[in-house]
Amino acid sequence: METTQIQLIARPHGEPMDTDFAVVKIGLPELEDGDVLLRVLYLSLDPYMRGRMSTAKSYAAPVELGTVMVGATVCEVIESRADSLAPGDVVLSYSGWQTHTVAKARHVRKLDPEAAPISTALGVLGMPGFTAYGGLLEIGRPQRHETVVVAAATGPVGSAVGQIARIKGARAVGIAGGPEKCRALLDEFGFDAAVDHRAPDFEDQLAAAVPDGIDVYFENVGGGVADAVTPLLNRFARIPVCGLVSAYNATEAPTGPDRLPAFMRRILTSSLTVRGFIQDEFVPTRYDDFLRDMSEWIRDGSVAYREDVVVGLENAPEAFRGMLAGRNFGKVLIRIGDR
Amino acid sequence: METTQIQLIARPHGEPMDTDFAVVKIGLPELEDGDVLLRVLYLSLDPYMRGRMSTAKSYAAPVELGTVMVGATVCEVIESRADSLAPGDVVLSYSGWQTHTVAKARHVRKLDPEAAPISTALGVLGMPGFTAYGGLLEIGRPQRHETVVVAAATGPVGSAVGQIARIKGARAVGIAGGPEKCRALLDEFGFDAAVDHRAPDFEDQLAAAVPDGIDVYFENVGGGVADAVTPLLNRFARIPVCGLVSAYNATEAPTGPDRLPAFMRRILTSSLTVRGFIQDEFVPTRYDDFLRDMSEWIRDGSVAYREDVVVGLENAPEAFRGMLAGRNFGKVLIRIGDR
Repeated sequence: METTQIQLIARPHGEPMDTDFAVVKIGLPELEDGDVLLRVLYLSLDPYMRGRMSTAKSYAAPVELGTVMVGATVCEVIESRADSLAPGDVVLSYSGWQTHTVAKARHVRKLDPEAAPISTALGVLGMPGFTAYGGLLEIGRPQRHETVVVAAATGPVGSAVGQIARIKGARAVGIAGGPEKCRALLDEFGFDAAVDHRAPDFEDQLAAAVPDGIDVYFENVGGGVADAVTPLLNRFARIPVCGLVSAYNATEAPTGPDRLPAFMRRILTSSLTVRGFIQDEFVPTRYDDFLRDMSEWIRDGSVAYREDVVVGLENAPEAFRGMLAGRNFGKVLIRIGDR
Repeated sequence: METTQIQLIARPHGEPMDTDFAVVKIGLPELEDGDVLLRVLYLSLDPYMRGRMSTAKSYAAPVELGTVMVGATVCEVIESRADSLAPGDVVLSYSGWQTHTVAKARHVRKLDPEAAPISTALGVLGMPGFTAYGGLLEIGRPQRHETVVVAAATGPVGSAVGQIARIKGARAVGIAGGPEKCRALLDEFGFDAAVDHRAPDFEDQLAAAVPDGIDVYFENVGGGVADAVTPLLNRFARIPVCGLVSAYNATEAPTGPDRLPAFMRRILTSSLTVRGFIQDEFVPTRYDDFLRDMSEWIRDGSVAYREDVVVGLENAPEAFRGMLAGRNFGKVLIRIGDR
């Protein structure tokens, strides 16, 4: 049995290029006791993968050159030597950018295709949804009538942040790129206000959208959006720092002026809380609550989600570049196998 | 009855100059029912006062030009029209930089000169001590065997931070300017290690002093000390931001490179908590605990304190400049009246 995989073969300088990847066919090992053979149906593309392509110090080791790019997948079991799984079962795995894999059955999680569409295990009911839930509720702690702002707001994390904020009685203001996404924030996701960061008067529009200031800024982009948010933060505002996508492809040391002293002064004079996090730290205390709450919110319609499905493993590098640049519209999934 | 007061007459540009202040004699009003006439014994000088001299947005309104500089004082009652106070009583007041004042009795707090030296109400048993206690215990939350780092460590806040950290079972590392202060950190205040930020190999010395990394950095200076600390922070480290003294006299926008992106990346990848605070937010929940704990720690010798007493109101501006530059050695007090 063979798998076709996309390996990382060079460390990207700036935006990852096709030449940083290679499509490679390799044989898979024979199954041992406890193993399953998986056919990948969906691969999730997420911004954290840019960090794994680089050797800069981070919370996880980089992908070694000449090995398959990492990533979460939804797969179908096609052969099993484990009692817990049978052919036809659908599982959540971490097989990376490839068509097939052999995994230990105990390392995958069986999904119930009747409970929710299987792709949601990579989005609203998976890591991105839990990132929103854990970061917003553990760090952001929105109170009734407070104002929550999030950027990349039609993405899988941002859209969940805004909708959970509203469920908790807060006012949700989303930032997105372009009028189509801003319309979706209001019409699909039920945000209270939407602001287009590409508009020439973005700062003024944002200020107008938060007449009572900002109590929670869920940070997933950094850059110019964060600069516009900072002056509007209220005393005791909370900033869960979940990502800084705008800087992930940066190649040069930022030039001046140095904005750190002013930001620290703002933290001091407004008693701000700025807290970085990775969702896995909240798994022990919050994951069960998340699955229960989010499943119910999807069923009762209080949380909507949007997927941006690209067909074909070979299109993953281009789809990944597009996601970092904000050209996606919803959770980016690569459909690799049909079911 | 007259008071001699130091008024702010110009907004300082950079370091406050003598010409930014004026010594003025003015008459005091007659006492009304509930009033006391106070003679100032000690005036406290604290870094936050630099913020009150400027109009930059902060948590408190600036001192208006042509009015007395604000500040906490310990005073003797010399005349009373309030039942709660009698001549000879000693009180904590907020009379500012002057020799006498008329205050409402309900706005001052009576001190017990038998319980502790009266000057400590402005230092280790006052706002600076409570700043250390509240910020360290509410935000820093040092655990046994963790490492706590604090700068300006012979000052009233820093010395209390290190000593409370040790009481809680943590390792205390102090940063101070010059060998004399570093010796005092070890010999007087019982820190586990002391590092001189003026040493040419400061960064290396600091790294050597924290072999297990840094879990709590109590931020009261900013600048180059903070730059040396950041790479040494452990995952989940906490940074209570209490002050940024190194920047208080800054007159020009900082030039590049822009350090904010790297700092935000560090917050993200190490799950740091950065939290600004003003001690008053902890008063409702922590002040009684503080008075009880700190009084006991002073009595049993587990907390030492050091005062730097300057005689004469007219020397307050120079003493204030010295404090911002780190030329003081301990809590800066201006002795205005004898008792």
